[in-house]
Amino acid sequence: MRIDNLQYANWSEKIFRQMNDGAVNAVHVTIAYHENFRETVLNIEQWNRWFEQYPDLIFAGRWASDVQLARETGRTAIFFGFQNPSPIEDDIGLVEIVHALGARFMQLTYNNQSLLATGCYETHDTGLTRMGKQVVREMNRVGLVVDMSHSADRSTIEAAEYSSRPIAITHANPFDWEPARRNKRHAVIEAVTSNGGMLGFSLYPHHLKNKTDCTLTSFCTMIAKAADTYGIEHLGLGTDLCQDQPDSVVEWMRVGRWSRDIDYGEGSASAPGFPDMPSWFTDNRDFANIEQGLAEVGMQPDEVNAIMGGNWYRFYEESFTPSPL
Amino acid sequence: MRIDNLQYANWSEKIFRQMNDGAVNAVHVTIAYHENFRETVLNIEQWNRWFEQYPDLIFAGRWASDVQLARETGRTAIFFGFQNPSPIEDDIGLVEIVHALGARFMQLTYNNQSLLATGCYETHDTGLTRMGKQVVREMNRVGLVVDMSHSADRSTIEAAEYSSRPIAITHANPFDWEPARRNKRHAVIEAVTSNGGMLGFSLYPHHLKNKTDCTLTSFCTMIAKAADTYGIEHLGLGTDLCQDQPDSVVEWMRVGRWSRDIDYGEGSASAPGFPDMPSWFTDNRDFANIEQGLAEVGMQPDEVNAIMGGNWYRFYEESFTPSPL
Repeated sequence: MRIDNLQYANWSEKIFRQMNDGAVNAVHVTIAYHENFRETVLNIEQWNRWFEQYPDLIFAGRWASDVQLARETGRTAIFFGFQNPSPIEDDIGLVEIVHALGARFMQLTYNNQSLLATGCYETHDTGLTRMGKQVVREMNRVGLVVDMSHSADRSTIEAAEYSSRPIAITHANPFDWEPARRNKRHAVIEAVTSNGGMLGFSLYPHHLKNKTDCTLTSFCTMIAKAADTYGIEHLGLGTDLCQDQPDSVVEWMRVGRWSRDIDYGEGSASAPGFPDMPSWFTDNRDFANIEQGLAEVGMQPDEVNAIMGGNWYRFYEESFTPSPL
Repeated sequence: MRIDNLQYANWSEKIFRQMNDGAVNAVHVTIAYHENFRETVLNIEQWNRWFEQYPDLIFAGRWASDVQLARETGRTAIFFGFQNPSPIEDDIGLVEIVHALGARFMQLTYNNQSLLATGCYETHDTGLTRMGKQVVREMNRVGLVVDMSHSADRSTIEAAEYSSRPIAITHANPFDWEPARRNKRHAVIEAVTSNGGMLGFSLYPHHLKNKTDCTLTSFCTMIAKAADTYGIEHLGLGTDLCQDQPDSVVEWMRVGRWSRDIDYGEGSASAPGFPDMPSWFTDNRDFANIEQGLAEVGMQPDEVNAIMGGNWYRFYEESFTPSPL
């Protein structure tokens, strides 16, 4: 089973075919960075058109069982997520609404302070706000996963402890391996995984040792070490694949409508665009390379399968349905 | 089985208990008159809170099978509908979105001209507009029922013929029985029912012979005659019960935000408010009276059951799921 728990590509039939060619059973796709509720619904409408246009390639994923259905029918189940809580605006009732529309992951922050918590680029970290605690409880109730990939340390640790259901860091790597601002310190990963949560390893070059030049062996050795440290059952992939996106999109991701100044995020004035992906992972057909790399650093087949999708599948089973009363 | 295919009450625990006490298995409730998309979502959020507060009395109905579930668990399944297409604004993509949020009936018009068709109070009847035809096809595709209760004759006949799936007049009576503006002429009912559609009989006094003083026998005799004319399988109830509503609500229904002048609709300057219901039907506990009345005008038990809910149940089975590819 292959599940990629984070992509934000410039979607096209070509990419959907590559998902199928790569035998990717499920992808969690980002459908909002800074969009408000109505704009997010417009993005869902666009996905509905793609589901209608390419029924042999993709369909709307709602439950873990849809991953099995995708495998049985040779297609890819698409699960929606937000990298920011902007789609719920200031209205906690929208948590249940967006879940009904297919949202399964929502970051409490994207780099900046939000109404709910603090992003990883802020100077001061409030932890969960008053509304943040209410929204985490509501997300727990309806089955919308708390994702802290772009959040600050204290906020992440508090969310992991406050949430009654396991949370996720869908796309980031250990800070100990590569000290990028978006990578996660030991105490943060420990808080998430010790409470049953998941870490999805990112292939976004800014999160990799030596960025685009990162070797497959270095990446897979890092995963094997994380398995020893945190337990393999808490680990999966969230490649952050942003295939075919123009550089205008990374500017939207970073700046949205919140700033009059350019913010380069993980880039810089001299390299403001999307970085090139490592040669061994450029699109959805390259997951076999990672499987081979994991085997070469000593992982057993069942361990490789757990990393490639088995763990996310179990997490989907536990996380997407409403909480029992 | 008891299904009431139109109510717009001032919802409360009292009314939900009366639904249960009256063994009403399903109610199609109006959740929008003039609301735009975001306002309609707020109304759904309010219903979600009621579902959470009163899980022993009501739950969100999505499919025909939920009516059976309601019967088995002694509750009432609530199905959403709009009396106006205002919730989809000018965006055909919202048809699939509102269906995902539970909408199962949508009127193409409410008294006035809409973007889709003509209401029954207009002077000129355009029939289905360009967008109207597109939206009917999309409603057919996703499983949202076309409801023409407040539409003009030509628009209704065109919708019945253009729609690839049966449509409904959820709440109105034959004009031949009571010549009210909102009641339906023979050719209109004929077009709807001969194409497999449904007529739900209304208990709203302005649609009744002698209004509030209408007798149960007159009402049931009218139903028996309609069964002879159109076929009993096309008939059910849509009481239009507006229980406990303040008169400010009927003004909202009639005037919305579209007029600076007061429009009295079916009322008048001397009687602008909600009329009193007939004594034999004042709330959800009175369906047994109608059953008794139907038996007394000569209907057999299976015929009474068909009128009281069996026909709507079959229609729900045929209508709410997406159209096969």
